Amino acid sequence: MIDGRTTIIAHIGYPTESFKAPMIYNPWFEKHAINAVVVPMGCRAEDYAVFFRPLFRLSNIAGALVTMPHKIPTLSLLDEVSVSAKVAGACNAVRVDPGGRLVGDMFDGEGFVRSVVRKGRKLAGARVLVAGNGGVGSAIAASFAKAGISEIALFDAHAPAMHALAERIHASYPNLGVTVGSNEPAGFDIVVNATPLGMKAGDPLPLDASRIASSTLVGEVVMKEEVTPFLAAARERGCEIQVGTDMLFEQIPAYLEFFGFGTATADELREIAKIHY
Amino acid sequence: MIDGRTTIIAHIGYPTESFKAPMIYNPWFEKHAINAVVVPMGCRAEDYAVFFRPLFRLSNIAGALVTMPHKIPTLSLLDEVSVSAKVAGACNAVRVDPGGRLVGDMFDGEGFVRSVVRKGRKLAGARVLVAGNGGVGSAIAASFAKAGISEIALFDAHAPAMHALAERIHASYPNLGVTVGSNEPAGFDIVVNATPLGMKAGDPLPLDASRIASSTLVGEVVMKEEVTPFLAAARERGCEIQVGTDMLFEQIPAYLEFFGFGTATADELREIAKIHY
Repeated sequence: MIDGRTTIIAHIGYPTESFKAPMIYNPWFEKHAINAVVVPMGCRAEDYAVFFRPLFRLSNIAGALVTMPHKIPTLSLLDEVSVSAKVAGACNAVRVDPGGRLVGDMFDGEGFVRSVVRKGRKLAGARVLVAGNGGVGSAIAASFAKAGISEIALFDAHAPAMHALAERIHASYPNLGVTVGSNEPAGFDIVVNATPLGMKAGDPLPLDASRIASSTLVGEVVMKEEVTPFLAAARERGCEIQVGTDMLFEQIPAYLEFFGFGTATADELREIAKIHY
Repeated sequence: MIDGRTTIIAHIGYPTESFKAPMIYNPWFEKHAINAVVVPMGCRAEDYAVFFRPLFRLSNIAGALVTMPHKIPTLSLLDEVSVSAKVAGACNAVRVDPGGRLVGDMFDGEGFVRSVVRKGRKLAGARVLVAGNGGVGSAIAASFAKAGISEIALFDAHAPAMHALAERIHASYPNLGVTVGSNEPAGFDIVVNATPLGMKAGDPLPLDASRIASSTLVGEVVMKEEVTPFLAAARERGCEIQVGTDMLFEQIPAYLEFFGFGTATADELREIAKIHY
């Protein structure tokens, strides 16, 4: 029940119609007797810069979940940007710190990495291939870099995106091996499809699945179906797989920790989502 | 349940801790399956002008309930101001009309007047005394003027407030008789205490209750107790009385109509308040 002591978290993006976060966070807050509410705010791109600072001057706001089309513009509006957000080149979480300081972080990749860790995979020293170096691929690469892997391989048909990501990784993690330009998956511990391939029926696979070793964990960002053709091919080769929605549910606990609301388990959140979606 | 299609109504003021509106409006919306939510927003006076316009550019906002300390400053930020808000000199409701036009109205007095009408009193041709010409007294005077009374008497120990209100009434209702400077209640159909007298134990009565005729309806804005000493004195004289919270519950339907959410009865709202306060 919202009252005069409720803390608000803005969920800012445009359009808002497909927003799911309020239907997960708000029941979770209620379940845990936390007086907070996620409020969808439909802010158009052209209005964002003017709205941003005044919004966070409110006395009862903890921060914001930031989504399309504001993830990239947010970076330039903050007082402090996490390394993950810098490397990702985007921000999907803003927190108001004491004194009104605005701190931004990026949890799209964090969800992916947490899910990998939960499957028992060691990341220290791991070799990771990320195919697709747009927004979500950059975020995943940033989180793997933070997690202490030893080598990351980047591949994107759009070369400038790939090179820019490589440079951002190198700037923040100079000791991490970065290679670019090949989507050959042999020899990697973790292989990630962060391209949109798999969204449409008849899409080619993002890379040659027949070259993936069975010991490799194969993950996916496409959520159109639970097991995409790419994941199906990997599973056929004996690989452990990670479905697209894992990233989604594992990133919510990271958000909750960031805002200081404690933590949640992905399973608990999946349960809530089952009821309310 | 808030989702991506929820319409938000900002409840703007500072501080927010004592806000009650969310606990009445939100259960009412739920009961009537209206996908809307009142969201408290603690905006400090110095931040208001900068926040105001960008807030109403959101794609999913219907308007705002405006409270202290913003009721007066809001007037100068709108595209259109109702006559009631002009006469009251303050605004407590903002609606976003098609094209983003911001329309302001004032319902503090409307609640008082609706409650009088509900008691079966005719306002056409009535003579009304309003003692106390600050914010709430001005709003009540404005709503009586709109309702078609024939004469209004104003009284305030702070003469400039009284004269300013008289001028604003005269500017919008040149045919309405306005007198100032006396709190003698004899001869009035309706007598209103809109001073803060009655808030503290030992306060003097706002006017000489022994001069009120038994046919007079006597109303009060003080909500500290249901029957204030002033109302008790009037009741002793045989007068019908109107308690302070009547104004509160009768103004909510006016707000709901203003925003286009249909209407509610004060009884239904009192019932909701009983459960959730």
